[in-house]
Amino acid sequence: MHSKIIKRRELDFVLHELLDLQSLTRAPRFADHSRETFDAAIDTALQIATDKYAPHNRKGDTHEPHLDGGRVTLIPEVSHALKIFVDAGLLAATFDYADGGMQLPRCVANACWSLFKGANIATDTYATLTIGVANMLKAFGNAEQKQRYLEPLLAGRYFGTMVLTEPQAGSSLAEIQTSATPRDDGGYSIKGNKIFITAGDHELAENIVHLVLARIPNSPPGVKGISLFIVPKYRLAVAGPQPSPLPEGEGANDVALAGLIHKMGCKGTTSAMLNFGEHGECVGELLGEPNQGLACMFQMMNEARINVGLAASMLAMTGYLHSLDYARERVQGRATPDPRSPQVAIVHHADVRRMLLAQKSYAEGGFALCLYGAWLSDRHDVAETADERREARLLLDLLTPVIKAWCSIYGTAANSLALQIHGGYGYTREYAVEQFYRDNRLNSIHEGTDGIQALDLLGRKVMAEGGAGLELLGKEIAKTIAEARRLDDATLASHAQALEQAWSDLQLTTRVIAEALPHHPTLALANASVYLDAFGHTVVAWIWLRQAVIAQTRQHDSDTDFYRGKLAAARYFFAYELPKTAAQHTLLRSLEALNVELDDACL
Amino acid sequence: MHSKIIKRRELDFVLHELLDLQSLTRAPRFADHSRETFDAAIDTALQIATDKYAPHNRKGDTHEPHLDGGRVTLIPEVSHALKIFVDAGLLAATFDYADGGMQLPRCVANACWSLFKGANIATDTYATLTIGVANMLKAFGNAEQKQRYLEPLLAGRYFGTMVLTEPQAGSSLAEIQTSATPRDDGGYSIKGNKIFITAGDHELAENIVHLVLARIPNSPPGVKGISLFIVPKYRLAVAGPQPSPLPEGEGANDVALAGLIHKMGCKGTTSAMLNFGEHGECVGELLGEPNQGLACMFQMMNEARINVGLAASMLAMTGYLHSLDYARERVQGRATPDPRSPQVAIVHHADVRRMLLAQKSYAEGGFALCLYGAWLSDRHDVAETADERREARLLLDLLTPVIKAWCSIYGTAANSLALQIHGGYGYTREYAVEQFYRDNRLNSIHEGTDGIQALDLLGRKVMAEGGAGLELLGKEIAKTIAEARRLDDATLASHAQALEQAWSDLQLTTRVIAEALPHHPTLALANASVYLDAFGHTVVAWIWLRQAVIAQTRQHDSDTDFYRGKLAAARYFFAYELPKTAAQHTLLRSLEALNVELDDACL
Repeated sequence: MHSKIIKRRELDFVLHELLDLQSLTRAPRFADHSRETFDAAIDTALQIATDKYAPHNRKGDTHEPHLDGGRVTLIPEVSHALKIFVDAGLLAATFDYADGGMQLPRCVANACWSLFKGANIATDTYATLTIGVANMLKAFGNAEQKQRYLEPLLAGRYFGTMVLTEPQAGSSLAEIQTSATPRDDGGYSIKGNKIFITAGDHELAENIVHLVLARIPNSPPGVKGISLFIVPKYRLAVAGPQPSPLPEGEGANDVALAGLIHKMGCKGTTSAMLNFGEHGECVGELLGEPNQGLACMFQMMNEARINVGLAASMLAMTGYLHSLDYARERVQGRATPDPRSPQVAIVHHADVRRMLLAQKSYAEGGFALCLYGAWLSDRHDVAETADERREARLLLDLLTPVIKAWCSIYGTAANSLALQIHGGYGYTREYAVEQFYRDNRLNSIHEGTDGIQALDLLGRKVMAEGGAGLELLGKEIAKTIAEARRLDDATLASHAQALEQAWSDLQLTTRVIAEALPHHPTLALANASVYLDAFGHTVVAWIWLRQAVIAQTRQHDSDTDFYRGKLAAARYFFAYELPKTAAQHTLLRSLEALNVELDDACL
Repeated sequence: MHSKIIKRRELDFVLHELLDLQSLTRAPRFADHSRETFDAAIDTALQIATDKYAPHNRKGDTHEPHLDGGRVTLIPEVSHALKIFVDAGLLAATFDYADGGMQLPRCVANACWSLFKGANIATDTYATLTIGVANMLKAFGNAEQKQRYLEPLLAGRYFGTMVLTEPQAGSSLAEIQTSATPRDDGGYSIKGNKIFITAGDHELAENIVHLVLARIPNSPPGVKGISLFIVPKYRLAVAGPQPSPLPEGEGANDVALAGLIHKMGCKGTTSAMLNFGEHGECVGELLGEPNQGLACMFQMMNEARINVGLAASMLAMTGYLHSLDYARERVQGRATPDPRSPQVAIVHHADVRRMLLAQKSYAEGGFALCLYGAWLSDRHDVAETADERREARLLLDLLTPVIKAWCSIYGTAANSLALQIHGGYGYTREYAVEQFYRDNRLNSIHEGTDGIQALDLLGRKVMAEGGAGLELLGKEIAKTIAEARRLDDATLASHAQALEQAWSDLQLTTRVIAEALPHHPTLALANASVYLDAFGHTVVAWIWLRQAVIAQTRQHDSDTDFYRGKLAAARYFFAYELPKTAAQHTLLRSLEALNVELDDACL
């Protein structure tokens, strides 16, 4: 099957050759699973993504959700596709058998979910948020909350949202003003205005479970005084064994849709302004402990950040495959200056190949990194020792901002190249690539902008626990370098050498910044975005060397073209991309103060 | 007046401090002009751009041209704005007094026109194409053609287009198949299908003058057999002193609108598929000599390429000013970790400043480079000696692909940063920046893609006349380096040192490639896009050093903030941007063969 979402072979490669799935299936949690069950899940997902998601991707873009007498109307394909997704068990893929789930490893589930992101990110988002909310209920809900909300969420009867942002509190969640006043019945009256609420309103489900950040009166200022609340669109009838939403008249919480936001891309996903409790009663219940809301929400945000990286990489992947097909079909120009010589497909032009290899290196490099992140999450969950668990956590914590931001930046860059390969046609709405480019641009913004990720990486993650994460990553990289050198291949040896140098550069840069940080924190963090870029390129170079080692070893056995493609993309990344980091390290080590010292009156 | 299109001070700086306008006004052609007449033209243009162009920029995006009973309908603001533009004399700004023009230098006219590009590129494009066609008539038309077409074009009664692309002939104009068969009356029957014809149909004018590339039967193959034709939408009544379009029934040429193309941006400008002579007679007349069509058209294309660079830089400029205003207004986050400390405007955050300075350096650097290109064009036109004329031509030829592609790439990058500074708001259609980003993305595609510009630069312009252009540019750069060193300022001396190194690197790289070119042309040109990027960054670094030299000298006299802003942007470019070229030179000198040797089956 020729898929324009992702090559099936690519999925197999990352899951079964790059990642050590064996180490997972040995764990009791995954003992029932095998290559066969994984393949079955992925085959199903690829079929649904291809047949039910991709076909309405453009329609969702041109037919935005709209308000119709106070109700949000979506094209019917969205509901239809999501129902099939739920029915196939994909919503509950990682949940326990006891919850009705498939108990799949997260890396396999992410591989499945990635297909929907590549096929139709706007429709996928409704499901992704619902999975996130279900995970939150599972982690922090009490037994009653699980019964009331988790079951219908996993059954796809309720959908979920995360409600953080307020007009005055975007990147700075410390500013949240929405209030949660205790009621006599143990609930809370929620009151406040929220904005940019993805999937904030729709008629896709019986109910919408909003997870809302708000302040209980007299809480500490800043992020230490934020709590998390479950606020259903329709309150539940609590009596009886099967709680269900009250009829609309009596059960509606005062969650008023103040308007839909019209975006540049991802148009098929509603983005809403919601007013809670402005004109009537809006009742929520506390999830987790008071004032621990942000800490709880970070579980969902970290998961969302991996999802963003994965979506960005998958949009890059499908853009790559679309432009590859176009480059093979579009005949233009010649191999020789003689105008009588035959024209050739543009895939034969060096500059088009550069743009294809760049996309391949960004898309496949990012995709593998995202699934590695999910694999670390599995390793954390099934670790047999505290050390193993800690190591998996440290590595995942360190890599999360990189996965989120690097994949977003380079995924969008990949889509720009896909558009460029299509020439004038790529700029028209007759071709898919311009939508990928618009859709992908969101990923550098939501769930924490690139700049926020960079501060998180350099200010927190790299420095955490005495740099333990960085040290662990260094060990992993050193392993790969040693493996590459053992192969006795000049190209791979040269890649290994370049990676060793880049890693050493990164360590030195990190030391310089770490020394400045206690005394001059603003200055030390002033170029965090440059640091994240260099860090990301180094990590992705490592991911490419890992892939190249496998490809070099196996290229003569079978799938020769596939493995040679891996080697070509690795060579591209080491020749064209990794060398960019050298100048970044020079800048970073100089602790360039321009942006700190600048008097903005001169701008 | 606070303009979000461009700072008035910026225009004055480039025209009167950076460029040597005195050397132009000494020429007889411009003898009537002075600072006062230039200022008057610019003031008028800024007023019209602000009042009549900017206000409908978003409306043109959301109300695309549409077909209404075979007619193309635009929002009425477009016609109104263009009429005011014409009435102010701006269409004929550079034309002779005898033609009813203002006889303005091109660099001043471009400064005026830049304002309309920044305010509303979609509406501006109708005028820009008309100016281009008028220039073609002036250069290549016979007396009768000038009388019939040039006058009404300059009066804004006729509008113009350039009709090159066919479905199978985009980047490769050698493939053009549209035929031009001689008629008994001296005219030609035109027959063929054209696509992506900007402003290809509308009701803004009495007539549309299409300049069409086509082949006369039995012409040589390839680009040497292409001729250029004037094809009016309505044929003219030739009798009488004032030729005018024949009434629609009898006068219409068979130029059939086969459809409008729907684009990602620049939506307000029609882009049409046109079928010439498919069902009826379509009569054209030869412009210039047979088989010289492409050579003639290159005059218009070169002009269009400068215009593209200027549009890209101006979209970057207005995006910069929009995001600067936003950054000053938007309060978010703190200067200290204490949540009780007051929040600050985001312009105080280092990462936001990085994004502002990057935009400033791309926008103002590109803008100055474009006006320098227009100034070279003026120098060419009024040169007193053949040597002066040759030098101006060589420099302009060399810089044209850089102006076109570099400004497009970095202009769009600037708009991405403007969007990023706006956070979630920037991704919505409530703010202007997302449209700038979409509009600007076209500039890397039309009038020759970035890849085509790169081949033109490295394969033709750099190598032309034994590298004479490069040598001349080197002399200009050396002059600026010497000026910087004379100022005895450590920062400028360090910039000068860096530029000297970058220029030396570029020369060496060029020599390596020049040596390979005769023997391995495909390999030598394989990384032309990387070469253009390094070349562009080096040229723009030079433009910034020139600006910094002026700013350093004058910063204590007046306008201190303005000059300090120039010094800050120069420092940004030398610290963050120019160092990127080092890795590019390493790659280029290695004559990396990956993209040539690649077997695309492995992609």
